[in-house]
Order: sequence, then structure tokens, then C-alpha cells
Amino acid sequence: MDPQQMKIAAAAQALREVRSGMALGLGTGSTAKEFVRLLGEALERGELRDIRCTCTSNQTEEQARSLSIPLFPLEEIAPLDLAVDGADEIDDRLRLIKGRGGALLRGKIVEQQAKRFIVIADDSKLVERLGVGVLPVEVTPFALAVLQKRFTAMGLQPVLRLRDGAPRVTDEGHRILDVRVPESEDIADVVARIRECAGVVETGFFPNEATEALIAAAGGIRRIQSRA
Amino acid sequence: MDPQQMKIAAAAQALREVRSGMALGLGTGSTAKEFVRLLGEALERGELRDIRCTCTSNQTEEQARSLSIPLFPLEEIAPLDLAVDGADEIDDRLRLIKGRGGALLRGKIVEQQAKRFIVIADDSKLVERLGVGVLPVEVTPFALAVLQKRFTAMGLQPVLRLRDGAPRVTDEGHRILDVRVPESEDIADVVARIRECAGVVETGFFPNEATEALIAAAGGIRRIQSRA
Repeated sequence: MDPQQMKIAAAAQALREVRSGMALGLGTGSTAKEFVRLLGEALERGELRDIRCTCTSNQTEEQARSLSIPLFPLEEIAPLDLAVDGADEIDDRLRLIKGRGGALLRGKIVEQQAKRFIVIADDSKLVERLGVGVLPVEVTPFALAVLQKRFTAMGLQPVLRLRDGAPRVTDEGHRILDVRVPESEDIADVVARIRECAGVVETGFFPNEATEALIAAAGGIRRIQSRA
Repeated sequence: MDPQQMKIAAAAQALREVRSGMALGLGTGSTAKEFVRLLGEALERGELRDIRCTCTSNQTEEQARSLSIPLFPLEEIAPLDLAVDGADEIDDRLRLIKGRGGALLRGKIVEQQAKRFIVIADDSKLVERLGVGVLPVEVTPFALAVLQKRFTAMGLQPVLRLRDGAPRVTDEGHRILDVRVPESEDIADVVARIRECAGVVETGFFPNEATEALIAAAGGIRRIQSRA
């Protein structure tokens, strides 16, 4: 299987957990997109019905709407029976880094409202130690410049996320600084220090939101369950 | 002295710490307003010069501008030599509750950039235990409804801050939930739980920002110094 086929395989496996009548949270990104597509097809074919969904981004809302998936504001259908989303990095304790696509804040808000949160991914996302790539940090515009300096002084090498040459604006009107987790430190400690800084709205570190993961590899799908 | 005179006395005492050439953070609220007024007068009389200021709210910016106080974006003059601001509650460890006026996020961003942060207040603000009144929590609009439910379940009795009958919008575009600190718990523990909730941008609890306080009482001004 190529990576695209793996994403589809993980998404298809997650769809088997969906029952008619459920309230669902729909994730954002290339793997979540496959799940949303398959969900739309199952609804279209009448295999599932009475599904109520809420989305973790405007981008997913557009896709879901184009597939006639019934959408609701989060507060109308919370708590959710199930949320399904991808991740940028996953460790064997089901801790995640998310938000390289920019939807970290709404993702975390939605996923904290879900009784079950299944992460779907291909096995390239499984890491021994979180922080292989960047950790996204969502910040208020007012604090952006001082936080860039402060994170630099903390050794985090912040880089302002751009889109088409201008600072990327999140769905909530914030900015994103992508930082590096120093190799000598555990990500949880780094995040604790980051969160002491006023102006930080959220980070892409999801310490305990995921309840299980479906990881597609060439040999099949591996399920990781939370120990909680 | 009546409360108004006490506020002026504390503000006047803080002004004595200002030297020409300093970069200052200007607070928000009825006591900070007196400091800004006195600062403007001192600049007008030429007793101070080359002062560069940044404000913790649009409201203070307006006042400062009307007094011809030189204003700069925070990042251009940070780190600040001194910030001066009021507080809603102060304990003897110099921990604060701020933000009943709504400027908690920008206040904390500015005050974390100050080498010294002097709190000015009349002695009605000095409390044995923080949480006599409400603790303001700034939240993103997307999370507002689910956080109201979640805080209620946590026993925090959240109330949405209103202005003219509509939800109050902060200078950064967020909303404010005023919560109650349960009597059985320390505020630091309550704040830690609140901050686990995605969508919380900041709280009005300032655990270690203040370096000193000038508290005006009928008998004179009391100075509380940080032990750090």
C-alpha cells in the first residue's frame, strides 16, 4: 500500500465504529478527509442514518457540506459519541502532536467533548519521541512579536507560520508559531513552560485526548488502545 | 481619605518610581487611570521626559493619547522598565486577581514583559484568600457554550460577562466567563484545572507577575515586596 491507500484503510476501519444515531466530531487534514468522504458515501447509500456532525475547521465544514453531511454547532450535539481525526505525530502512550494543518484549537475543543477519540494515520506518524517535527503554538496577534523573542530566548526556534507570504490566520483569528522541542527535554515540560507565557492560546500537544489509534501499515492495521 | 483619594495616593507613590528615559506599561481601571493622569501631568510640566509607554487596553490608549503620552507597540519597547496597574484582589504573597474590567489578557502579556510590576490599590483590594469575588476567564467564542457547561459541571458557576445586554467582547475578540473559586480549593489548583480546557485563552489569576504593591489605607501607604 502507498501512503494514500494506508490513509484510506485507516479511515475505513474507523468508519466501522460509527453507528446510526451517533453525534460525531470530524477532523481536519488529509487522513480525516478520507474519513469524511467515506462517511458521506455511507450516508448517501443509506448504510448510516441520523448522524449529527460537527467539524474541527472551516475546511472540513466545506467538505462535509458538499457531501450533504448534517452539520450542527458543537454545543448542540456535545458530548460527542465519537471524534475521528488525524495527527502529525503519535507516540506509544497515545500522546499526539497536531495542528500542522492549522486546526489545533478547534480540534482540541471538539475532541475534549468526545467520549471516544480515534486517531487515524499511516505508520509514518508513529514516533518514538514526540517532537520529530515542529510543535505548533497558537497565539494572540497582540503577543506575537514578544512571544517570538521569548521563545527564541527559551531555545525553541519559533517560526511564524505563513500562507501566501502573509502570517497564517487561524479560524479563530490567531497566529501560529511553529517551535522546536529541544532534544534534551520532554515535550510535556516544554509545553508547561510555553503555557506560562500570556498570549499563548493553545499548543498542538494533545497529552490525553486520544482514546485509541488506528495505524495503517503495509502489513495491515494496528490498533493502539489507551491504558486509561 | 475616601477610596478615590487612596487610589490617587497609591498612584502618586508609584509615579515616584518613574525616571526619565524609562519604558513603561500602563494599566487599566480606576486606579491605573489616576496613575496615567498623574504621569501625563508630570510630562506636561517637564518633570519627566523621554518616557515611552505601551497600554494594556484600548481604553488606556485613548486616555494616554488624550494626554499626549508617547505610545509605542509593546514589542518596540519591551522589555519594560516598569509596569503599573491596579488589581481586583491582592493577597500577601502578591498573587492577584485581575480582569474584572476586562483587560486581563493584554495586561498579563504586558506585565510579563516588565522588569518591575508595581500594583497600586486601596486597601479594600487586599484579601486573606483570593476568590472573594469572581475570577474572570477569557475564552474563544467557538468554545464559549461548551465551556459554560463544563465549568458548571466543575462547580465554578460561570456567568457570561455582558455589556449593554450583549456578550462583552475583549480587545482581542474573545469572551469572558466569570467563575467562582470554590471555598474548599486553592485558586492555583482551580486555575490549573480551568487551563486544561481547550478554548481557555487566559485567566485573571496572576500568580507571580507582580514584584511589589503600594496599598493605600487611611493611615498611609503600605508597600508589599515580593520575596523573590
